[in-house]
Amino acid sequence: MLVTVDDPGRVTITAIARQAGVSVPTVSRVLNGRSDVSPRTRERVEELLREHGYRRRASRKRPSAGLIDLVFDDLDSPWAVEIIRGVEEVAHSTGMGTVVSAIHGQPASARQWLQNLRARATDGVIFVTSDVTPPLHAELRRLAIPLAVIDPAGVPAIDVPTIGATNWAGGLTATEHLLSLGHRRIGFIAGPTRLLCSRARLDGYGAALAAAGRQADPALVRPGDFHHESGCAGGEALLDLADPPTAIFAASDQMAFGAYEAVRRRGLRVPDDISVVGFDDLPESRWASPPLTTVRQPLTEMGLLAARTVLRMAAGEEIETPKVELATELVVRHSTAPVS
Amino acid sequence: MLVTVDDPGRVTITAIARQAGVSVPTVSRVLNGRSDVSPRTRERVEELLREHGYRRRASRKRPSAGLIDLVFDDLDSPWAVEIIRGVEEVAHSTGMGTVVSAIHGQPASARQWLQNLRARATDGVIFVTSDVTPPLHAELRRLAIPLAVIDPAGVPAIDVPTIGATNWAGGLTATEHLLSLGHRRIGFIAGPTRLLCSRARLDGYGAALAAAGRQADPALVRPGDFHHESGCAGGEALLDLADPPTAIFAASDQMAFGAYEAVRRRGLRVPDDISVVGFDDLPESRWASPPLTTVRQPLTEMGLLAARTVLRMAAGEEIETPKVELATELVVRHSTAPVS
Repeated sequence: MLVTVDDPGRVTITAIARQAGVSVPTVSRVLNGRSDVSPRTRERVEELLREHGYRRRASRKRPSAGLIDLVFDDLDSPWAVEIIRGVEEVAHSTGMGTVVSAIHGQPASARQWLQNLRARATDGVIFVTSDVTPPLHAELRRLAIPLAVIDPAGVPAIDVPTIGATNWAGGLTATEHLLSLGHRRIGFIAGPTRLLCSRARLDGYGAALAAAGRQADPALVRPGDFHHESGCAGGEALLDLADPPTAIFAASDQMAFGAYEAVRRRGLRVPDDISVVGFDDLPESRWASPPLTTVRQPLTEMGLLAARTVLRMAAGEEIETPKVELATELVVRHSTAPVS
Repeated sequence: MLVTVDDPGRVTITAIARQAGVSVPTVSRVLNGRSDVSPRTRERVEELLREHGYRRRASRKRPSAGLIDLVFDDLDSPWAVEIIRGVEEVAHSTGMGTVVSAIHGQPASARQWLQNLRARATDGVIFVTSDVTPPLHAELRRLAIPLAVIDPAGVPAIDVPTIGATNWAGGLTATEHLLSLGHRRIGFIAGPTRLLCSRARLDGYGAALAAAGRQADPALVRPGDFHHESGCAGGEALLDLADPPTAIFAASDQMAFGAYEAVRRRGLRVPDDISVVGFDDLPESRWASPPLTTVRQPLTEMGLLAARTVLRMAAGEEIETPKVELATELVVRHSTAPVS
């Protein structure tokens, strides 16, 4: 709990509750910033807290577990390690450990993780991409464990700090880059539409085309799931069109590598015959042949910021900017060239 | 400590010590399998322990911390996540957390990690590639924390279980594959020679050539450091030879991708103009274009086995095979073809 009632020499929340004519749990809810308190009650309690100089921050006595929990849906993507690096850097430098878990998108696995967590305590939890269910959120709240979400799958139904990237701006910039090279028929291989980031990237692509006075040709937009195989299939479908695109923008690096393979299978070359742009800037994009032009997501920085956020929450600080999008950036390498 | 002296109804180590005419710490050292006990003393103590039916395993009372520590030199390699997956799978299924750390090859960073560890406890430690220094090993031993090493850099100076891969056999098989395709001039891009695994792969390459009645041409062996850039530089140097090789075997996948780039820069194609084989079988090798023929290191299985090993040690079990090499396996994809 954020609040101790028996701190000697200080006003207690019991006293505050009595004076406000509410229950002790209600005062506790106000202190913990919970939403299930009426505005009038909150106002009255906050006023009494101020009046009595109740020191909210210093009231936290729970000893540090020395651990930050980082929870992935799956550890099958190479960008996981980029996020781990960021969290680990903050944890290590503050004398803490980073506990990495994968819950495989399964409620049973998430419950198992929560059960493990209860047995050993943690100072903060960071979820990556996964949807945090309201029951899970409620339980973490009950345990007074700070929570932040990296790259949320959707607009979270719960009130947690989120750290994402400017996906729309990234989609826009990548498409503008291809337009500036003279490409007019630009294919797009999309990510899963249930994910917010996928929809933002697609909209950025559409916005760049619209700004250039062009409409997105629905035949040039192919579905994908961020993984290699869907990039290859999408690339082949685009190359097999009667009027194929001269450039392909894939919404993930892995799908861009799939598009490379589609180009190779058709006996063509990147960028001589077709330009390819990715999204992520995984280390692999530097090692691809040719090195991939892509939109950089600052994954390590997202991990850094998420770790700092939960540690600040654990220290009782207010998070003044609970929804943050870090800037994406176009990294031009050798997979794009002027239209021939 | 592995041993409690106050277990009611059982012979105590105090009694054993008295009868053997040695100190309690000496008995404790015997029980913990330490080497700083004379053979004669060890024998006498062991005999008394057997005589009194001292139950070594059940004597362990330390509560579980619910954590396994996994320590990398750096988290900059994509194969880190493969090992994390294996350890996490075991940890998760046994209700534990996996603490991932990077010590960046720096003694100060290793000391900081050890200090963090002391503050929170752990059930076992797995080092990856790093050299575990004797002082660090001694300290973990003093804390009675089980330790295993994945892919040791050298023959460990300390007595710990190690989990590696059959690097020599992998080097042999990859080279035999190229020989069977008719290649006679086979280039090799080596890993850092200070690492045992690098030397084993190079020797496997040499052994396959020797078995085919050929000698390794020193001009065809190039130094590398497992990273992409060195693969590219090594590949360019090989292609620029007056009598260039028709195939390149790189001792890591990342260096193989570097060789791809060297081939592309020379306007050539893999495998039409030159075959390339890697070593690791990172997920990226499936996504390369063309998909990479490579020697599979069972990284996830190595993580699984290391985690099971430290948990068995934590449970007081003897590890009957403390030095294990898991089998490597050639995975043939599309980067190798018969010599033209």
